[in-house]
Amino acid sequence: MIKVVAKGIYLEGKADEAITMYDELVKKTREEKGCISYSLFRDVNNPDILTMIEEWESVEDLEAHKISEHFTRIVPKIGALRKSAELNVYKMVY
Amino acid sequence: MIKVVAKGIYLEGKADEAITMYDELVKKTREEKGCISYSLFRDVNNPDILTMIEEWESVEDLEAHKISEHFTRIVPKIGALRKSAELNVYKMVY
Repeated sequence: MIKVVAKGIYLEGKADEAITMYDELVKKTREEKGCISYSLFRDVNNPDILTMIEEWESVEDLEAHKISEHFTRIVPKIGALRKSAELNVYKMVY
Repeated sequence: MIKVVAKGIYLEGKADEAITMYDELVKKTREEKGCISYSLFRDVNNPDILTMIEEWESVEDLEAHKISEHFTRIVPKIGALRKSAELNVYKMVY
């Protein structure tokens, strides 16, 4: 199992716009092969921080997601609303 | 539900030592009231990065965890092996 944490700090006031865009991305991604979970979170202390936490069955499934129509169409638009982003790909220890 | 992502960048070669210390912390924390999940992950691209991803039923359960005997005893020792740390507390959007 592969875990992905994609954290974005958004330009002031832009996180709500990003959340609206994420709606379609979340729905379509959850239907993809190998997607175990794909959920968006908002920081309780800083509303400008949105983080996607993902679980994929394999690296291959994650790679296929990154070239999907909905990913390549929606993610660059969301990215334009961010001040900075940080992405980590993990394997479980325990 | 409260989600916590606690990411640590460890001093070179110290992550394995931290993993050993996390073993007891993970076992005891999973027995705590309100702990839905508590798992340790290692970055596949940078072995010096370890991240704990947690799910708690409420903020009160998370606060009780932070004053538990195992947390206050083990976490400072793990913290001493880190170069830097980053903690975010989240609520789910979707």
